[in-house]
Amino acid sequence: MAGEGEVVRGNKKVVLRGYVTGSPKESDMEVVTSSTVRLTVPEGSTAVILKNLYLSCDPYMRLRMTKHDEKNPNFVPDLVPGEVITGYGVSKVVDSGHPDYKPGNLVWGSGIGWEEYSVITNPQGLLKINHPEVPLSYYTGLLGTPGLTAYVGFYEVSSPKKGEYVFVSAASGAVGQLVGQFAKLLGCYVVGSAGSDEKVNLLKSKFGFDNAFNYKKEQDLNAALKRCFPEGIDIYFENVGGAMLDAVLLNMRAHGRIAVCGMISQYNLQKHEGVHNLMLTIQKRIRIEGFAVLDYGSSYGKFEQMVLRDLKEGKITYVEDVAEGLENGPAALVGLFAGRNVGKQLVVVARE
Amino acid sequence: MAGEGEVVRGNKKVVLRGYVTGSPKESDMEVVTSSTVRLTVPEGSTAVILKNLYLSCDPYMRLRMTKHDEKNPNFVPDLVPGEVITGYGVSKVVDSGHPDYKPGNLVWGSGIGWEEYSVITNPQGLLKINHPEVPLSYYTGLLGTPGLTAYVGFYEVSSPKKGEYVFVSAASGAVGQLVGQFAKLLGCYVVGSAGSDEKVNLLKSKFGFDNAFNYKKEQDLNAALKRCFPEGIDIYFENVGGAMLDAVLLNMRAHGRIAVCGMISQYNLQKHEGVHNLMLTIQKRIRIEGFAVLDYGSSYGKFEQMVLRDLKEGKITYVEDVAEGLENGPAALVGLFAGRNVGKQLVVVARE
Repeated sequence: MAGEGEVVRGNKKVVLRGYVTGSPKESDMEVVTSSTVRLTVPEGSTAVILKNLYLSCDPYMRLRMTKHDEKNPNFVPDLVPGEVITGYGVSKVVDSGHPDYKPGNLVWGSGIGWEEYSVITNPQGLLKINHPEVPLSYYTGLLGTPGLTAYVGFYEVSSPKKGEYVFVSAASGAVGQLVGQFAKLLGCYVVGSAGSDEKVNLLKSKFGFDNAFNYKKEQDLNAALKRCFPEGIDIYFENVGGAMLDAVLLNMRAHGRIAVCGMISQYNLQKHEGVHNLMLTIQKRIRIEGFAVLDYGSSYGKFEQMVLRDLKEGKITYVEDVAEGLENGPAALVGLFAGRNVGKQLVVVARE
Repeated sequence: MAGEGEVVRGNKKVVLRGYVTGSPKESDMEVVTSSTVRLTVPEGSTAVILKNLYLSCDPYMRLRMTKHDEKNPNFVPDLVPGEVITGYGVSKVVDSGHPDYKPGNLVWGSGIGWEEYSVITNPQGLLKINHPEVPLSYYTGLLGTPGLTAYVGFYEVSSPKKGEYVFVSAASGAVGQLVGQFAKLLGCYVVGSAGSDEKVNLLKSKFGFDNAFNYKKEQDLNAALKRCFPEGIDIYFENVGGAMLDAVLLNMRAHGRIAVCGMISQYNLQKHEGVHNLMLTIQKRIRIEGFAVLDYGSSYGKFEQMVLRDLKEGKITYVEDVAEGLENGPAALVGLFAGRNVGKQLVVVARE
């Protein structure tokens, strides 16, 4: 497929300047315009060349900006200072030496660079998009990893039952908004917390949460939870950690379940906050279970089928926060940790 | 069964003076000798009168010495100041108005007073002892609630597999010594922690632990665990909480399980220590599950059968720390929290 008349063109990219301590800043990243890329695959290579369309901003990316070592390992590899940031995205195949991918194919997956074009030498992880009738950007959210995370975290980790009391933190985010909707569809009572009145309104008016509160306006998280859950909480979908987890433990019901999806309030701290109420796991027989969507690839088919159906039937909705252009990528990513995004944060590099 | 010629006699008892703050002291309890008891059941009553033989000293009893309320509930009722302390014990039926119990029956269960004789108005919870060939005191430990706790916490909560790496804290205690032996019988690698060199020796020489350490002599619990578990820990049987739990989290393997049985290091604290490493539940997909033996009564038959068989075959051993006489009850109970007991702490009131 690679020919003689190779096309070489500029390739704008976002590079990590160095490992990050504390809250990430835009200046921890740099938009580089001097890079070039060859748009044809060399003879004999099984690489694919992607034109990147949508890039996903995910909280776990912050963890990859910290230097880890054997004593303090991470479950995904650290990013490399001076090199392009990578993550989940949606792309179009421009050229391919791999039999499974053809030019024009739309794909999504991880390992996609924050750049206009990416050369993927080991493309097995790229999934083909078979439903172009759905907005392509949904493969960074609703139909991508956040969606699958919500699905497995709720249905497979939380053992939910109709009528149970469900609390979701960071509830308007990429994952939380779906957990709440899944729980409502199952017949649960659902309350969400978020960091602005705008998000709280969204939870109630758009996603159908039974109740919601702005955690930044609450003097006492325990009291806020008691107000929203006079009967207590059966399932907590944990996205934030720290003080919220402590308050939730006080309000869990017997045999409650806490699915630990993320702890975004802790990612920028060098020493994580202490959680003081773990003894209640005994009195209340609570199960706390951390999970990583990476382990649940085999659930994708079932999940996709369900979401596509619910989407067509108008039972599910999804809110995105779209940053235009790679230049705005660093601000969009950094904004996640200040809660500036409303809904799933993504970056548009190009629209096909 | 109740007759005219009723026997009334003195009834020595241990009374709680008042609710306890901080570490319990012997002076929080009082041995009262002025009390009397009638040894026959009144006509028409379904009560039973017990002569108490062995009383169990259990860490959860400390929790019953704190005043709880709606905001801070407990899973067992608080003790009442001025009244006799109650707990698990082994007793002989002296008189009975209940059709299921006859004078001379040996029973064990909860709600038994720390006194020579107890009148039990609602005896349904008392279990008959059908194996008098076993030392009766074992029904406070090996064949009682601590034994069942070890059994369900290990086999039912921890999902153990042959060859896994198992860590037990408070490992020479009533529960820990059995967890370690169960794990060895299943073919696991087992390490225990305890608070004295004597106990550490016991773990290795008597209970067959592969390794053990004295946590009081370790500068760095994380380093101690790394030394004992270079490959990491699959199962942590949690009896202590606090700093040990934090160190364990650093050393858990992927998909590890933590069965939370108790957190004795926290029971005397008014504010519990913070646990800082919970974010590792995500990276390592850890499940932390609190359990209470109260929920597992239906497992008793299976458990008893297994332990009686292992005991007869010499595969299991059990170490008790026996305090003689009710007068020594308060010191024995208080000693649990200083780790003065070696093995299961119990109090002998009478030997039949």
